[in-house]
Amino acid sequence: MKPKVAFIGLGAMGLPMATALIKAEYNVTGFDVKPVNLSRFSSVNGHIATSVKEAALSADVLMLMVVNAAQVDDVLFEQDAVSVLAQNATVIVSSTVAPDYAETLGNTLRALNLHFVDAPVSGGVKGAEDSSLSVMASGPVASFQKVEDILKTVGANVFHLGERNGQGSVMKVVNQLLAGIHLATAAEAVNFASSYGLETAKVQEVIASSAGNSWMFQDRVPRMIEANPEVKSAVDIFVKDLGIVTDVAKSAKIPVPLSAAALQLFTMASAKGHGGEDDSQVIKVMSKK
Amino acid sequence: MKPKVAFIGLGAMGLPMATALIKAEYNVTGFDVKPVNLSRFSSVNGHIATSVKEAALSADVLMLMVVNAAQVDDVLFEQDAVSVLAQNATVIVSSTVAPDYAETLGNTLRALNLHFVDAPVSGGVKGAEDSSLSVMASGPVASFQKVEDILKTVGANVFHLGERNGQGSVMKVVNQLLAGIHLATAAEAVNFASSYGLETAKVQEVIASSAGNSWMFQDRVPRMIEANPEVKSAVDIFVKDLGIVTDVAKSAKIPVPLSAAALQLFTMASAKGHGGEDDSQVIKVMSKK
Repeated sequence: MKPKVAFIGLGAMGLPMATALIKAEYNVTGFDVKPVNLSRFSSVNGHIATSVKEAALSADVLMLMVVNAAQVDDVLFEQDAVSVLAQNATVIVSSTVAPDYAETLGNTLRALNLHFVDAPVSGGVKGAEDSSLSVMASGPVASFQKVEDILKTVGANVFHLGERNGQGSVMKVVNQLLAGIHLATAAEAVNFASSYGLETAKVQEVIASSAGNSWMFQDRVPRMIEANPEVKSAVDIFVKDLGIVTDVAKSAKIPVPLSAAALQLFTMASAKGHGGEDDSQVIKVMSKK
Repeated sequence: MKPKVAFIGLGAMGLPMATALIKAEYNVTGFDVKPVNLSRFSSVNGHIATSVKEAALSADVLMLMVVNAAQVDDVLFEQDAVSVLAQNATVIVSSTVAPDYAETLGNTLRALNLHFVDAPVSGGVKGAEDSSLSVMASGPVASFQKVEDILKTVGANVFHLGERNGQGSVMKVVNQLLAGIHLATAAEAVNFASSYGLETAKVQEVIASSAGNSWMFQDRVPRMIEANPEVKSAVDIFVKDLGIVTDVAKSAKIPVPLSAAALQLFTMASAKGHGGEDDSQVIKVMSKK
């Protein structure tokens, strides 16, 4: 009864999302270019394929959680997943991509008699692991309804933002705009407070009940003050995502002065060799040491 | 039994704070330069004075909720409140002031055998009205303890940030840094989203459960899209408060790139004649109309 799912991209986000589908008794075949990710997926009883095309063969739903639009294009057209899917299959892209890209991709896929839903997510690795993600989907209602159960399996809050592909991606870009600036702002605030001798744990406690609070402040500040925190999401992800914000804004002539400033801070961190570190380490570009 | 309180500054914040003290059966005498504020205070059964000095006469606690440090100096030294307070009285300044100013003022007042607690607050007019403010106090423990009950009457979360005066003010400056940037960021995000056709109410709903959420986003976005919203806190308050952030940061050589950018946005709004409007209207500097 349940649709056959192919899942491409089994990294920090994709693996727990695909695992949630398996737990909900979907038949999921996964592929990732990294063998270690494949063996992890195998260990949670996922079927693994040796290529994109093998994973996609006869699938009713093809879900992508890859790094960017270039990888989406590679999977769909270079690796040619689109040619082997089941008839009227639905493609879901959960990667963060530019809205115009998502809109164009929808038109391309519909010309191939496929459905398309862009469905980026928010909530990070933790949200993926406990299936509490927010899912920001868009596309024709008929397409959305075909995969609504799947989206509700990986996320707790599933929003249908509009019939036009790209609206979900706009929403995700807006979320990344907010999250990226809030993270850089948290770093600026923590550095300011500690320069004046306030203890960071106390600052976090006060801010939790004050007007200065943000989701990112509460989530990232504990890792910000660790010496070598686990990498939950890397600095370079925000170099990419705030880059999408400023690119999209520029093409539409929308001013984004704070996104531009925050992007420069993440870029500075990356230039100093911190690009692969946890994104909380953006504080290193402003701290004394 | 309860200390006799003089309350100076009965504006949008001060009036509900002083009213909360009256409800808790403190004997409160208030003064404000605006007659309308005095008559409002009288209507909630506050004693009103015709001058700062009359209000301060024999008071055990002098609480100030005025606009800035210049007004604090005026009340204490020009209007000469300090000369008429009860012996060993405690001065509380809840206005947002620079940390170094608060530290110096503490030394000055102790030389006059007075106690001093800097106790700025967060939570806005709503927080003042329902006594849910966060209070960020500092000063010697003995001084803090003398007024702890008063602070707990006006606020729900009372923090003692340190023995040194100014630490509470540092915490407030940090909160304003976060709140000011978050508000300008909310404006940037809402303008971006609506430029791409997303409905703002929907955006707010999605962000509420996403990583991009902030206290300011949820509080200010509804007023941001109103035509002529009630002024809960004016644009010029953030011109002042982010000005304190950048001044303090400059003097201590602490980089605050996002505060500096956000300050320019509020300054642009003020320059365009919106300084007296609700601070959510900072969006006007980036929106098309």
